[in-house]
Amino acid sequence: MIAIKPKTKDWLQLERHVRFGDTDAAGVIHFHQLLRWCHEAWEDSLQRYGISAGSVFPGCRSQETGPDIALPVVHCKADFLRPVHGGDCLQVLIEPRRLNRSCFEVHSRFQLDNIDMAIGMTRHLAISSSSRQRCPLPDGIDLWLEASNMGRLSSS
Amino acid sequence: MIAIKPKTKDWLQLERHVRFGDTDAAGVIHFHQLLRWCHEAWEDSLQRYGISAGSVFPGCRSQETGPDIALPVVHCKADFLRPVHGGDCLQVLIEPRRLNRSCFEVHSRFQLDNIDMAIGMTRHLAISSSSRQRCPLPDGIDLWLEASNMGRLSSS
Amino acid sequence: MIAIKPKTKDWLQLERHVRFGDTDAAGVIHFHQLLRWCHEAWEDSLQRYGISAGSVFPGCRSQETGPDIALPVVHCKADFLRPVHGGDCLQVLIEPRRLNRSCFEVHSRFQLDNIDMAIGMTRHLAISSSSRQRCPLPDGIDLWLEASNMGRLSSS
Amino acid sequence: MIAIKPKTKDWLQLERHVRFGDTDAAGVIHFHQLLRWCHEAWEDSLQRYGISAGSVFPGCRSQETGPDIALPVVHCKADFLRPVHGGDCLQVLIEPRRLNRSCFEVHSRFQLDNIDMAIGMTRHLAISSSSRQRCPLPDGIDLWLEASNMGRLSSS
Repeated sequence: MIAIKPKTKDWLQLERHVRFGDTDAAGVIHFHQLLRWCHEAWEDSLQRYGISAGSVFPGCRSQETGPDIALPVVHCKADFLRPVHGGDCLQVLIEPRRLNRSCFEVHSRFQLDNIDMAIGMTRHLAISSSSRQRCPLPDGIDLWLEASNMGRLSSS
Repeated sequence: MIAIKPKTKDWLQLERHVRFGDTDAAGVIHFHQLLRWCHEAWEDSLQRYGISAGSVFPGCRSQETGPDIALPVVHCKADFLRPVHGGDCLQVLIEPRRLNRSCFEVHSRFQLDNIDMAIGMTRHLAISSSSRQRCPLPDGIDLWLEASNMGRLSSS
Repeated sequence: MIAIKPKTKDWLQLERHVRFGDTDAAGVIHFHQLLRWCHEAWEDSLQRYGISAGSVFPGCRSQETGPDIALPVVHCKADFLRPVHGGDCLQVLIEPRRLNRSCFEVHSRFQLDNIDMAIGMTRHLAISSSSRQRCPLPDGIDLWLEASNMGRLSSS
Repeated sequence: MIAIKPKTKDWLQLERHVRFGDTDAAGVIHFHQLLRWCHEAWEDSLQRYGISAGSVFPGCRSQETGPDIALPVVHCKADFLRPVHGGDCLQVLIEPRRLNRSCFEVHSRFQLDNIDMAIGMTRHLAISSSSRQRCPLPDGIDLWLEASNMGRLSSS
């Protein structure tokens, strides 16, 4: 039998160069920058997977109106495990998790040389842009969630 | 018997005017700004209580060196309950909690007209600036924690 | 003869407490935070003068739509004269200048003990939100500009 | 005769994906983010050219102390020519300019499809970290400035 190594999911393995402006006077990153990185990593992941920004976010070029479904962050958290410094080049491992038909989380693991430095998470709720009521996730997001988790269930 | 109304703890009741730059193209605040507000509310609370920035944070004016004890954020989280808009003037209620001799949390409740709009929290760990090892909280922080919680135990 | 002391224009004299998150690993403020402070000082000035955020900025509460006239920043600049530290409490002196019927500048002078630490400026252009064409400034802004400069011409 | 096409200077031609958090409620980027991008573009350019962050910036990993020479921003400015939206992928053209032995500017041109959308600039002054007095630029920065401008003089 042949074991097929699953193709690397390159939209889940990103990089983040830590910049000088991300630090504070303690000489390491200022904590809330990590939450910004989490959201930007999610945006980067969608883009690499092939989902256009304009289909998910309002305010994009050539949009007549914003998307029908908004995905606001309703919860977020982060753990700071080791000091992160300016100049560090971090690996960012994205783990999306579907909670239910209206809700998902994006967990981001920030590593240096395979060691976890910090972990962040954003939880998003799908709501109708017009009614502001909870609604099913957009199809693109559903596909991205499914593709991201394919092959993960059996091994965990 | 005389019921003594406790003096208002004015270092725990702050304000935050939401600025245009805190919003994103969805027309409400961008989520990670709230974590910035949490830290700034903590700083404001210490200052109003009478603790100088230079005794807690590195990088302050007239410091020869930074404080002996650093208080990095090791965990944070936030819940976004209702949309917060530019121009909103929020009440910020600070609830500090001592976890143990090296660790405390600052919970911040952001209200509009007495309704919770968002809640955030930062958890801080005291470490020695030189050894980077866990150590007891600085005296000033201990006093601020004690004063903030005085009278609260009996009622909760 | 009676010398009338002009009433202090309290909407032009603000304060800014420098927070820990405004600094970087060099131990002083990270430069671009100053541009944020400039915009926030302008917002604060308008508010103190009595102009509601919702009449100037989109995304405010209870707006059906944004204002008819947008005031985007078309140019900005800043000079950094002396190191600004976390914990500093700066005086912010606002000097609005009307350039023409569609354009004005807000100059912000950041002082510590009457010494200039940094100076910033934003230039705003009035454009129609629908046509995106240049248009006259909104009435409220015109009043604020006039009131801010009253009595200044003769003395300069 | 053979005309030698100069090798593309890939450390002067960068990219910037505009993220959702860079926008405000007007639906386009909030102005001061551009200044952040300018500094990050400079850092990116140095890194691509081969200058380590730790040789230029304090707060980097494995530094005993910060660099002997600091390069604070003493002036910055920006022009906003056309609306920049979330999701835009901008080309960033860096033009470093040596002003004198202690001072240089980094001009950053942000383009979409070869059209200028915004232009920003930071001016840096070399000062001795210990004496805080003006001093010559570090060797690495001098090399980067020279390499960046090679071949430009004759054509301009």
